[in-house]
Amino acid sequence: MHRTYVKVLEDVLDANGTIAAANRADFDRARVTVVNLMSAPGAGKTTLLERSLRGLDVRVGVVEGDVASTLDADRIARLHVPVVQIDTDPGFGGECHLDANMVRSALPSLRLDELDLLVIENVGNLVCPAEFVVGEHHRVMVSSVTEGEDKPLKYPLMFRACELVIVNKADLLPHLHFDLDRYFEHLDAVHPGVRRMLVSATTGDGIDEWRDWLTAVAAREVVPA
Amino acid sequence: MHRTYVKVLEDVLDANGTIAAANRADFDRARVTVVNLMSAPGAGKTTLLERSLRGLDVRVGVVEGDVASTLDADRIARLHVPVVQIDTDPGFGGECHLDANMVRSALPSLRLDELDLLVIENVGNLVCPAEFVVGEHHRVMVSSVTEGEDKPLKYPLMFRACELVIVNKADLLPHLHFDLDRYFEHLDAVHPGVRRMLVSATTGDGIDEWRDWLTAVAAREVVPA
Repeated sequence: MHRTYVKVLEDVLDANGTIAAANRADFDRARVTVVNLMSAPGAGKTTLLERSLRGLDVRVGVVEGDVASTLDADRIARLHVPVVQIDTDPGFGGECHLDANMVRSALPSLRLDELDLLVIENVGNLVCPAEFVVGEHHRVMVSSVTEGEDKPLKYPLMFRACELVIVNKADLLPHLHFDLDRYFEHLDAVHPGVRRMLVSATTGDGIDEWRDWLTAVAAREVVPA
Repeated sequence: MHRTYVKVLEDVLDANGTIAAANRADFDRARVTVVNLMSAPGAGKTTLLERSLRGLDVRVGVVEGDVASTLDADRIARLHVPVVQIDTDPGFGGECHLDANMVRSALPSLRLDELDLLVIENVGNLVCPAEFVVGEHHRVMVSSVTEGEDKPLKYPLMFRACELVIVNKADLLPHLHFDLDRYFEHLDAVHPGVRRMLVSATTGDGIDEWRDWLTAVAAREVVPA
């Protein structure tokens, strides 16, 4: 059974790649830079966006991916940022990731020509989102220090798939048994030298560096990986 | 494409159900109670087991499910508890859940006749593990307060699939913007009245109630859901 399952999913991945390429062509035609933002559930992706998008000097839109609810889209809409919610619920009891076709279905609701930057907040999951490209230029993950030092070793594909790791909830470090040096060693073991930023989306510490990065990718000053 | 994907996975679920029933028959023959323990990455499943299994007055074994690494099995082995690690890595870039066949492949490595209780620690993921039964009698999830109040609403299937929610990392509550009453309202909205225990696997607070529950299910004093 197991081999069949893998085979079928490989076919799905081929179709996904074709649709992702079409999305990417649309993004490039509209000159909008697309960032795929991934993390485990509750790592703070939405709070990070709330903290950083307001007043950002680029025209930004957001696609929110969730299994269910419009909670995150509601939060982003309060920033007066155009946002589209994709709920994966109609699929197989709730798909655990966004795929290229789901993102494609959201594009007619966005005026790409009026955006410089589109952030796609993926479903909270450290496995499958890394396997499904959606046409993005940049892949970023948010990793919360509350999740433990071992996560790069346990979910290596996700940590390898991204070009930037936002290490969030730094404000909680004094209250955790978490050795930041050891965490960075684990990160370098699976993705040597990958760029990292230590932030607290709650207090705002470190957020300027992330905002600068968003501004640079929107201006296409950062070469897509 | 989307509809086809769902169809194929439904076939996979049928096969999974067949193998899960075979597992369950083996567990019942050996009179071992099986608990499927699920959570998001880093919610503290392994720490909870470290804190609660040592000195538990039942014969307990553990199956560790991860995408990669044997870190968790190494931690459990230090408790002198029989443990088998399943890495899902050989699958589709790392399966995001355990399925019944993976669990079945682990059974020859365990002496079921010498156990009263088997805890299966699933891959950290709030979506797919809820969709794949593995032959367990009880489904429990660990939900960390660091993940935010909204998680029951965003991952309703997982919160509905379990009969007990361990709300972990209670020691961090003073440092978070987390309204416990509101979280419980969300929990009751998706799974009214589901049993819950507030614990800290780090400090040990609330762990006695969880140990008592494990002892009761091992003695088959709790009727499987």
